[in-house]
Amino acid sequence: MARSILVLNGPNLNLLGTRQPEIYGHDTLADVEALCRTVAAELDLAIDFRQSNSEGELIGWIHEAQETHDAVLINAAGYTHTSVAIADALVAISLPAVEIHMSNIHAREPFRSHSTISPVAKGMICGFGGDSYRLGLIALAQLLSTEPEA
Amino acid sequence: MARSILVLNGPNLNLLGTRQPEIYGHDTLADVEALCRTVAAELDLAIDFRQSNSEGELIGWIHEAQETHDAVLINAAGYTHTSVAIADALVAISLPAVEIHMSNIHAREPFRSHSTISPVAKGMICGFGGDSYRLGLIALAQLLSTEPEA
Amino acid sequence: MARSILVLNGPNLNLLGTRQPEIYGHDTLADVEALCRTVAAELDLAIDFRQSNSEGELIGWIHEAQETHDAVLINAAGYTHTSVAIADALVAISLPAVEIHMSNIHAREPFRSHSTISPVAKGMICGFGGDSYRLGLIALAQLLSTEPEA
Amino acid sequence: MARSILVLNGPNLNLLGTRQPEIYGHDTLADVEALCRTVAAELDLAIDFRQSNSEGELIGWIHEAQETHDAVLINAAGYTHTSVAIADALVAISLPAVEIHMSNIHAREPFRSHSTISPVAKGMICGFGGDSYRLGLIALAQLLSTEPEA
Amino acid sequence: MARSILVLNGPNLNLLGTRQPEIYGHDTLADVEALCRTVAAELDLAIDFRQSNSEGELIGWIHEAQETHDAVLINAAGYTHTSVAIADALVAISLPAVEIHMSNIHAREPFRSHSTISPVAKGMICGFGGDSYRLGLIALAQLLSTEPEA
Amino acid sequence: MARSILVLNGPNLNLLGTRQPEIYGHDTLADVEALCRTVAAELDLAIDFRQSNSEGELIGWIHEAQETHDAVLINAAGYTHTSVAIADALVAISLPAVEIHMSNIHAREPFRSHSTISPVAKGMICGFGGDSYRLGLIALAQLLSTEPEA
Amino acid sequence: MARSILVLNGPNLNLLGTRQPEIYGHDTLADVEALCRTVAAELDLAIDFRQSNSEGELIGWIHEAQETHDAVLINAAGYTHTSVAIADALVAISLPAVEIHMSNIHAREPFRSHSTISPVAKGMICGFGGDSYRLGLIALAQLLSTEPEA
Amino acid sequence: MARSILVLNGPNLNLLGTRQPEIYGHDTLADVEALCRTVAAELDLAIDFRQSNSEGELIGWIHEAQETHDAVLINAAGYTHTSVAIADALVAISLPAVEIHMSNIHAREPFRSHSTISPVAKGMICGFGGDSYRLGLIALAQLLSTEPEA
Amino acid sequence: MARSILVLNGPNLNLLGTRQPEIYGHDTLADVEALCRTVAAELDLAIDFRQSNSEGELIGWIHEAQETHDAVLINAAGYTHTSVAIADALVAISLPAVEIHMSNIHAREPFRSHSTISPVAKGMICGFGGDSYRLGLIALAQLLSTEPEA
Amino acid sequence: MARSILVLNGPNLNLLGTRQPEIYGHDTLADVEALCRTVAAELDLAIDFRQSNSEGELIGWIHEAQETHDAVLINAAGYTHTSVAIADALVAISLPAVEIHMSNIHAREPFRSHSTISPVAKGMICGFGGDSYRLGLIALAQLLSTEPEA
Amino acid sequence: MARSILVLNGPNLNLLGTRQPEIYGHDTLADVEALCRTVAAELDLAIDFRQSNSEGELIGWIHEAQETHDAVLINAAGYTHTSVAIADALVAISLPAVEIHMSNIHAREPFRSHSTISPVAKGMICGFGGDSYRLGLIALAQLLSTEPEA
Amino acid sequence: MARSILVLNGPNLNLLGTRQPEIYGHDTLADVEALCRTVAAELDLAIDFRQSNSEGELIGWIHEAQETHDAVLINAAGYTHTSVAIADALVAISLPAVEIHMSNIHAREPFRSHSTISPVAKGMICGFGGDSYRLGLIALAQLLSTEPEA
Repeated sequence: MARSILVLNGPNLNLLGTRQPEIYGHDTLADVEALCRTVAAELDLAIDFRQSNSEGELIGWIHEAQETHDAVLINAAGYTHTSVAIADALVAISLPAVEIHMSNIHAREPFRSHSTISPVAKGMICGFGGDSYRLGLIALAQLLSTEPEA
Repeated sequence: MARSILVLNGPNLNLLGTRQPEIYGHDTLADVEALCRTVAAELDLAIDFRQSNSEGELIGWIHEAQETHDAVLINAAGYTHTSVAIADALVAISLPAVEIHMSNIHAREPFRSHSTISPVAKGMICGFGGDSYRLGLIALAQLLSTEPEA
Repeated sequence: MARSILVLNGPNLNLLGTRQPEIYGHDTLADVEALCRTVAAELDLAIDFRQSNSEGELIGWIHEAQETHDAVLINAAGYTHTSVAIADALVAISLPAVEIHMSNIHAREPFRSHSTISPVAKGMICGFGGDSYRLGLIALAQLLSTEPEA
Repeated sequence: MARSILVLNGPNLNLLGTRQPEIYGHDTLADVEALCRTVAAELDLAIDFRQSNSEGELIGWIHEAQETHDAVLINAAGYTHTSVAIADALVAISLPAVEIHMSNIHAREPFRSHSTISPVAKGMICGFGGDSYRLGLIALAQLLSTEPEA
Repeated sequence: MARSILVLNGPNLNLLGTRQPEIYGHDTLADVEALCRTVAAELDLAIDFRQSNSEGELIGWIHEAQETHDAVLINAAGYTHTSVAIADALVAISLPAVEIHMSNIHAREPFRSHSTISPVAKGMICGFGGDSYRLGLIALAQLLSTEPEA
Repeated sequence: MARSILVLNGPNLNLLGTRQPEIYGHDTLADVEALCRTVAAELDLAIDFRQSNSEGELIGWIHEAQETHDAVLINAAGYTHTSVAIADALVAISLPAVEIHMSNIHAREPFRSHSTISPVAKGMICGFGGDSYRLGLIALAQLLSTEPEA
Repeated sequence: MARSILVLNGPNLNLLGTRQPEIYGHDTLADVEALCRTVAAELDLAIDFRQSNSEGELIGWIHEAQETHDAVLINAAGYTHTSVAIADALVAISLPAVEIHMSNIHAREPFRSHSTISPVAKGMICGFGGDSYRLGLIALAQLLSTEPEA
Repeated sequence: MARSILVLNGPNLNLLGTRQPEIYGHDTLADVEALCRTVAAELDLAIDFRQSNSEGELIGWIHEAQETHDAVLINAAGYTHTSVAIADALVAISLPAVEIHMSNIHAREPFRSHSTISPVAKGMICGFGGDSYRLGLIALAQLLSTEPEA
Repeated sequence: MARSILVLNGPNLNLLGTRQPEIYGHDTLADVEALCRTVAAELDLAIDFRQSNSEGELIGWIHEAQETHDAVLINAAGYTHTSVAIADALVAISLPAVEIHMSNIHAREPFRSHSTISPVAKGMICGFGGDSYRLGLIALAQLLSTEPEA
Repeated sequence: MARSILVLNGPNLNLLGTRQPEIYGHDTLADVEALCRTVAAELDLAIDFRQSNSEGELIGWIHEAQETHDAVLINAAGYTHTSVAIADALVAISLPAVEIHMSNIHAREPFRSHSTISPVAKGMICGFGGDSYRLGLIALAQLLSTEPEA
Repeated sequence: MARSILVLNGPNLNLLGTRQPEIYGHDTLADVEALCRTVAAELDLAIDFRQSNSEGELIGWIHEAQETHDAVLINAAGYTHTSVAIADALVAISLPAVEIHMSNIHAREPFRSHSTISPVAKGMICGFGGDSYRLGLIALAQLLSTEPEA
Repeated sequence: MARSILVLNGPNLNLLGTRQPEIYGHDTLADVEALCRTVAAELDLAIDFRQSNSEGELIGWIHEAQETHDAVLINAAGYTHTSVAIADALVAISLPAVEIHMSNIHAREPFRSHSTISPVAKGMICGFGGDSYRLGLIALAQLLSTEPEA
């Protein structure tokens, strides 16, 4: 059976396409989701694609993943730099997580270089726009392929 | 037609009047809203006055403003010093925003001197109690008067 | 009449027992609640035991406490290190608050040593696992015994 | 009798209109003074509008204000970030002071975010160009209206 | 046989009751010792209550505890913030230690927030005046009850 | 014609497979090169795979790439954290560069979290062992596919 | 012939007596000058007592002292914490200088603890109100008594 | 009856005269004591002159002073920069204290510029060699003359 | 017609030749001016050579330069490290400025390494004694030769 | 006989003319060398003009200079900010060295403001493009003219 | 006659052998003393081997050494990182001192990397367990062999 | 068979004897090598003594050591403070390494106190001039004597 990935999108990502296109590009979140679905199909992965502006809701979804998913792909957006609670949630569950960012967070304001999530993720991918999602799914497919199914 | 301002109030401002009156004064949030409505009428502005303790809800309201309002007046209270996500939301929409605080945040604990919101706002006003709201509305009226209506 | 304590649990504490048991032990949050109820009974205290992953919801519950409780016992978990808004909420109400942590936050990552809540609490207790809750209730019983009932 | 405001302008503000117009706009200091006079008349305030490049002269004028004015509106320009002596002067007299800046000092070089004056002022207004002066006068009119005349 | 606790009091605590009563209360060290003896009796613990102004003497007493006591309750007072040697002594012996403070060290001068002892203690309790000692003894009684007697 | 990628490996990577296998895994650099060749073939890319312990030699190779390659994939290893000169070299040429690391540099010693190269790369990928190379090649293939061939 | 001391008073000291009397006391600068004249007479010193709000004027007076005085007693007030130029002036002349402050600068805001002048003065005296001047003159009398007259 | 001053000398001051005479001069501690006795006689003060290398002993002597002396003159030497406990002792007693140093601590290694004692002393005097003691006694005589005898 | 350079000298430079000759050499400011006049003649430049100890006067002279000179050569001396206002003045006018220092400011006290002026100057020259002025004039002659005369 | 200058160029300077021409201009390193040769001829200096991307090779060349040259002119480029070893090499030989940079390193990224080489050079010149080399040679000619030939 | 070395051991070293043997090994302090005596005999050195938990006692012993010993070998243990007074004592006497540590202090908690003693010692040796003492004695034997006996 | 030690000398050490003899003494590197050979013979060690100014070459030699030597003695000179890559190389091989310095790096410029190599070495020895090498060889002989030969 296909492994299932929870794809989490943090605050303001619902505005993709209109929000600062010089940084984030012109694709909408729906475009990104469509890309993810295509890639997932190629990789024989199921995906559950969600967005929330609420730190608490994101934490709750991470908790649920423990029962219903095999891994987490997370673009925590603005919570990346401030949320200990989301990082704690990722540690609390036993699933591999990959952190992604559309922009190169190291080439922007200094405060964006620090992520509370990076130390608890398997790996991090940033700077490739919507393609960061595709790379994250490929990375997770490989990570899952080396673990026995539950 | 009157320009419309979204007036956002962050966490704990619902307790105004009882919360540390030596810092915030004795006016309740309802008193502040009444003041804003009076001032707005004088300035021929419509206002939409809201308060939330939820960072996510505040972000959502900022997103909505893009469709339904002409500007944002925001007192982010305790989120002022920690929220990258609210600042990102203000950048993501194309409306002018003015940041206000009732107390003089530079005359209190050192951590209150730093605002994540200031760099993305048009301007900042602090220290005048409820009058900070009035000044913010006057400032926005002027800002809007120099932009053509959509 | 018994004094009433609002026992607040922050993000990820709903996963207690399965979350990093080498740090937090094997008791579930229900076990901790049961312990609190037993201790409260011995101390003639009523308790209202809640958990939320939402910063805004925790703030709202603190506000409610002003009307319905006599004190707050709070384990803010991941919000301990980042939330100005929760600390502001505790200051805004007129009830004594005690901060607790199951782990010794000073023996973990450096960022966990700093709490925004400590300066506004009556006192802080950390490092005793579920017993931190018991000690916190005992501390509050003593604090309340020296104040006249309203 | 009209209350009297000392409006102080710090170094380089005499070059307004030609100095970095992309930041400070095209109005000259005379234009700003004219705006202030118009606003003051509406508010029934007298104003005394001065500019100096000398820290010592600014301090001397602040001292004089104690005898001859009811409040100070100050744009300390480049001295904002370095002058303990001007801040001490404002504390030394018993008049309310409001700090203003034409640009949003929080959206420029990091060293401009720190003001030695903010902690000793009643409040601070920045980012509204010449309108910062207008808002400052309105703020002071309100502050003075709540104090009995000497 | 009753477990035995070494209760250590650091510099200046001999002046309790007269030293800054607005911070430390009006109880003398003898009052605190009496409280400890009462609590210990209830908990079936023996206690050895000592005070010294000498860092070296405190270290020596900690060393002795290894042979003659089952745990250490320590209020290191002014040495809390500077002594690596006392922390090293606590690590060097094989007994559980609990750190206590009468005042809330996080609500005072910034340098008091850092303790060299916290990372090597089982847990920390602060802010409850003399009651901090009582809570510390209760915590140790519980810690010892889960370890087999030697 | 196939686009050509210069794959650069910095100091100590020649010891892969024997060097700290708990961090870097058991694959040798030859294994990684083989993986890269397989992936490149699938992506219709040519690759030029090199390793050097010399900062100057790495800089020279980056310069050469301007004439002979279409992009750079770089794992600068220990030079990641200290070399301004390698970052300057990447800026000096007009080719897209992607930074990779086998380990998650954010989950190790603090000094490893800072990269001089990240701000000048298109994007960064870390934490996936040898798979980081594969993901980097996929990312570059996509980047190149959206640029017209010279 | 009596040795001559230049007694320099920095910005805002002309307001002594009315400026924050809870910190600086009720003596005016004229009172302080009278005290200095009495003390100087007892010590067989001539004094030249001056005050300026201008950093440049203070520097000029220091330069003049080289020809006309034997030592400098300086209370640089607000320039204490920021003026490299005054410290350079004191180094540039060959006379001994003593730094004084009426308040204990180490018991106030943190920025007041740092003096640019201390490293270039013979010694520093602070915290004794007007008596700091008397002590400074006594100190200089002693310093001069151990040097041969020119 | 003459007021009595406890003159405390910290670690290594017993070596005065031989210890780094280029910094501390050639007077021995006995010479300094003789100077103090002469000055005290002139000022009608009794003095109790002590030296210890032990932080704990110094603290104990400060405690004793509360009963037997009217003020403390302290040169804490190497403990100046590290001892919270000595500073706490000075706060704990109700006597005025003056801090002195023979060398100008602001003109030496950076770590010597910070004193834990300064914020709790009435005032500080440094840089005058043995004369710092004389100035300290004069300062204390003045401080005591303005307080009624017990 | 010859281009005209305003040569500005900051505080204490009037003492050149007597001030710390081991750092600044034995040439007086008049010697430096003579050197500048000789060099200027060779370069077909007119110079206006001024010195002031007053920050405000220096700012005023910079403003004047806009009308009467083609470039500024500035040795801001002690104001180099502290004056935002002088740097703002240089930005405010449209003339090229070159910063010079006689001593190597990077080989002295750490605070001298930071200049507020460097970021707004065309270039900086330090360490060559009086020759720094000559080099600065040569640099300006070259800069001006590549700009069309107004 | 003509004095001989070793002109050293650090990493990436071989790309001059194509590398970021908006910062470094359009002259190639050959153009800069030609300029240096012309200037040297005018100054009666011999020059040895070299470039290397290798820190070790630059160090070796500095060592050789001790035997074969009279001074060093060095543009260490990217090694400026990180190389202790090059600075040590300059100290190790007995020749005067002058540091140059084409760009104004103080007007770029913050990390470029710090140079390990500045404290060990005679002086520093930056911001004049290729003209920085010319100024450096003029400075060295003057430095050498005041030293007797060996 | 044999030169005499004072071997000083700081706090907690009396517990060697039982204290954290994974860091300090299984040898007791008596074992280390025996090793020192054997090595000293081979080097024709006399040794005086002492341990104290008291900072003051260690200082006193250092003072005594000036009369009775030729050099000091010191393992200051926990006082290494905090004691200015011990470092001052070592400077105050005229004997060479060598600092040793059994563990590699640079491979443990960050605060252990800083030693107040290192800057005043001839040299430092760490990381070799009991062998650090042997190496220290060999180093001192060599240092003393190059100085004439008194 | 004799154990073999690779003795590595970093940049500028080839100039020993002429380079800053007041810090490094008058022995040349050949003298140091001769000392090492004598000591090695006494200890029954073979040594391979090398020097390079190239970070990459030093790394390569460390790699080779894994096959041909039993331990590394390293004086990384200027690379000590900046090279992550050399430290990584030492970790990558399985041989014990000892770090040495001729000067006391803790008694010089602050940046010399930090070594990237110390945390990965067995131990560190500094301050004994050429004797640091001798002590390092003795230390390694002891370390190797407690490990079985391969």
